[in-house]
Amino acid sequence: MIVLNGTVHEGRGALFDLGDRGLTLGDGLFETMTVFGGTVYRLGDHLDRMSSGLAVLGFEVPRERIAGDIAALAAHAPRSGAVLRITATRGVGARGLLPPETPAPTLFGALAPYDPAIMGVPVRLAVSPIRRNEHSPLSRLKSLNYLDSVLALAQARKAGADDALLLNTAGRAASAAAANIFRVVGDRLETPPVSEAVLGGIIRGRVLELAASAGLRATERPLSVSDLAEADAVFLTNSVRLVQPVTGIDGDSLPTGSPAVEALMTALLAEVMSETGTDPRG
Amino acid sequence: MIVLNGTVHEGRGALFDLGDRGLTLGDGLFETMTVFGGTVYRLGDHLDRMSSGLAVLGFEVPRERIAGDIAALAAHAPRSGAVLRITATRGVGARGLLPPETPAPTLFGALAPYDPAIMGVPVRLAVSPIRRNEHSPLSRLKSLNYLDSVLALAQARKAGADDALLLNTAGRAASAAAANIFRVVGDRLETPPVSEAVLGGIIRGRVLELAASAGLRATERPLSVSDLAEADAVFLTNSVRLVQPVTGIDGDSLPTGSPAVEALMTALLAEVMSETGTDPRG
Repeated sequence: MIVLNGTVHEGRGALFDLGDRGLTLGDGLFETMTVFGGTVYRLGDHLDRMSSGLAVLGFEVPRERIAGDIAALAAHAPRSGAVLRITATRGVGARGLLPPETPAPTLFGALAPYDPAIMGVPVRLAVSPIRRNEHSPLSRLKSLNYLDSVLALAQARKAGADDALLLNTAGRAASAAAANIFRVVGDRLETPPVSEAVLGGIIRGRVLELAASAGLRATERPLSVSDLAEADAVFLTNSVRLVQPVTGIDGDSLPTGSPAVEALMTALLAEVMSETGTDPRG
Repeated sequence: MIVLNGTVHEGRGALFDLGDRGLTLGDGLFETMTVFGGTVYRLGDHLDRMSSGLAVLGFEVPRERIAGDIAALAAHAPRSGAVLRITATRGVGARGLLPPETPAPTLFGALAPYDPAIMGVPVRLAVSPIRRNEHSPLSRLKSLNYLDSVLALAQARKAGADDALLLNTAGRAASAAAANIFRVVGDRLETPPVSEAVLGGIIRGRVLELAASAGLRATERPLSVSDLAEADAVFLTNSVRLVQPVTGIDGDSLPTGSPAVEALMTALLAEVMSETGTDPRG
């Protein structure tokens, strides 16, 4: 099930202009969100992030248009849960890089099955040789330029790990292939600021907000790989898998079973249930 | 006029799977080439570069398939000239970053008009705040992740310049938004090596090869912005515009009218004419 410029289609095929800059240049952004009981969790946050990201790219898609296409798809989501992705591109353009003066953005989205089994699964990380570029605004956006993360994840899997740990060009921890990273030390919860080549993840934001309720003092600060290796607990966050404990980085094992991490997961699940009226665990 | 998986279509619209990873993740590569008198200039170089780039991405498209789709499009190119772009993606995939184990790549291409007036046009550069990432293999590939260059070019135009000068994260010169950069000092011709976050451009390669015939000794070495500012001449190369003299960088003007640069342009034009039997100047 997809939506393309306001029209819902069965399947994923549609008449598409192959001169669309999303396809030819990666000139666009996307959001991935969950839908439970027909309600998108933290819809406002996703709409806010997409709008502020599009402003960095220099074009606009009316919020109501984005919300409308999300609603059109969400209406078809199973009550038990679905993953919804919405993509905005700068639309078609002439050959070359220069953006059209008056872009006609393309908006499309797709529904995918939600599998509760992937929520909270522990992961082992491998440090990637590919680094995130804090000297590019794209390192803070969910843009269509995801190939670095694709290659980093594929390499990590080949190395026997579950996910990649990407450093920034200064050599400090930025994120996993598609997830933010946190550490817990005592009652402190720390995650790198977005200036470290970090996407301001929606769940990252919720975890920073919910930290106090889990007895943690949250701060954003740069983290080295040693900072992670020496932590009481390390975990990832993203919109689909929520909180994932990290069991090790390269050869080193990390402590698991942190009550603080479990408290955060519990607080997040409670929030999802309260907002959507549905238990994401099925 | 486009070609999609072997079928030529009028216009640019086609039935397309919106789950294609080229569109959703920028998971693909492209080549831009010129066609004169029905013949693609340096076709073998473009096919070689695409194949070696796809190997870095971890999937293959048979060379004969790529050559076949290029030929199908080139057959429709006006004799006076056209720009041909061919794009290979990893094809459709499930939601998420992990590549399918047995990808079914998508191959598509488009013809665009060739305007001889843009060849050799002098340009003024503005140093971009966005930097190219030498810690990513994408900095050496013509991947679908072109948004950094799009934003850098748009910013340069806003600042009143014609093109952007992108540095790498070490602060050394890498390239323009979609062109390689060279400097001439005396009889020396210098350009940064690909390890500096540089695409190994086809015309870049031809210029290094043809340098001796223009009385120049060519070497690859890292270049600072000062190295460029102090040069006898600076120029850009790319497949469509061939050689473009750089008249200035930010506030500084550069010497123009270099006989060496003119000799290189003459040598390139002679090679295009010899290979295609057509004068690209019309």
